[in-house]
Amino acid sequence: MNREQALKIVKEQLTDHRYTHTIGVMETAILLAEKYGADEKKAETAAIFHDYAKFHPKDQMKQIIIEQQMPSDLLDFSSELWHAPVGAYFVEKAVGINDKEILDAIRFHTSGRVGMSLLEKIVYLADYIEPGRHFPGVDEVRRLAKTDLHAALVTSVQNSIMFLLKKGQPVYPLTIDMYNDLVINKEGLIR
Amino acid sequence: MNREQALKIVKEQLTDHRYTHTIGVMETAILLAEKYGADEKKAETAAIFHDYAKFHPKDQMKQIIIEQQMPSDLLDFSSELWHAPVGAYFVEKAVGINDKEILDAIRFHTSGRVGMSLLEKIVYLADYIEPGRHFPGVDEVRRLAKTDLHAALVTSVQNSIMFLLKKGQPVYPLTIDMYNDLVINKEGLIR
Repeated sequence: MNREQALKIVKEQLTDHRYTHTIGVMETAILLAEKYGADEKKAETAAIFHDYAKFHPKDQMKQIIIEQQMPSDLLDFSSELWHAPVGAYFVEKAVGINDKEILDAIRFHTSGRVGMSLLEKIVYLADYIEPGRHFPGVDEVRRLAKTDLHAALVTSVQNSIMFLLKKGQPVYPLTIDMYNDLVINKEGLIR
Repeated sequence: MNREQALKIVKEQLTDHRYTHTIGVMETAILLAEKYGADEKKAETAAIFHDYAKFHPKDQMKQIIIEQQMPSDLLDFSSELWHAPVGAYFVEKAVGINDKEILDAIRFHTSGRVGMSLLEKIVYLADYIEPGRHFPGVDEVRRLAKTDLHAALVTSVQNSIMFLLKKGQPVYPLTIDMYNDLVINKEGLIR
C-alpha cells in the first residue's frame, strides 16, 4: 500500500483537524526515523494509521476491548486511551496491515509501555511534537528530539503525567511504567 | 506498652533529628485520629514506630526484603522506600507489636497503596505534615487536613509524585496506584 492509498483510507475515519494532525505526525515520524535509524516506511505507515479509531463510538471501543480481551483496566481509565489498542485491532482486521512492529506502535502510542521499540518511541514522540501541537513544554521537547530521543521521550512523558496530576486525573499504570523504565534503564528495557 | 516505653525503644534507633520528627508525627497522627474517628492509641503507636528501620543499613534491609519475600520490585526503586516494610517487620519481630492495622500503617507509610485504611491514611499524612516539615505545598496540605482528609491525601501524593518527576526519579507503582485509587474511587477502594 503506498502513502496515498493509506492516507485515503485513514482520511475517511477522521475529522479534517485530526487528518491534518495525522499528516504532521507522519512527516515528523519520517524525520525521526531517518535521524535515529528506524525503518522510515514503517514509521510512515504507523503514523498514518495511529489515530485510525480516534472517532469510533466509545461503546464500540469498549466492546472490542472486552471481546478481544485487551487489558481490562483500560476501562477504569480515560477513554482517550482506548483508541490506540482498538486502532491497532482495526488496522489489522479492517485495513489488513499485519506487521507486528507497526501494530504495536499504534497500540502503545498513547499509553507507552515498558520496553518500547525504537518505532514505538518515534510514533509516541511524533504524536507529541508534530507541528500542529501547541501546549506548554512542547518546544523544549522539539528541541530535545533533534539530538536526544531518550531525553525528548522522558520530558514528554514527564509533562504528560504532570498534566494529569495537576488536573487530578488518573494516570494509566503503563505510562508510569514507561517513565520508570526510561529513567531506570536509560534506553528502555530490551524485551 | 505505654507511650514512654515506646518512645524509649524507638529513640535508640533514630538520630535526634528523626526522633523530633517522630514526636511531630505522633502528635499530628493523634490529632488526625481524633478528628477523623480512628483509634487514637493505634495512631500513636504506628506513628511512634513508623521510622523504626530508617537508619538500618541498606544491606540489612535488602536482605530482609529478599528473605521475607517482600515485593521484589522494591529493590528496583529508591532505598528510601525500604525502611517502611522492613520497619513493619522489625516492629513485629523485635518490638513485639502484632496488631495488623498498626503494622500496615508502618508498612505503607512511604509508598501508600490501593485501599488504604483510615489508620494508614492518617500515618501517611501525619508524616507529610508534621510541624517539622518545610517544603513547598506543605501548608496547603496542612490546611486541607483540617477539614478534608481525602483532599489532603490527594494533594500530598500529587506533590510527592511531581517532586519525583521533576527530579527525573522513578515513581514506585504502588504510589501511583494509591493516587489513582483516591481520584477514581474518592475514598479509596474498600478492600
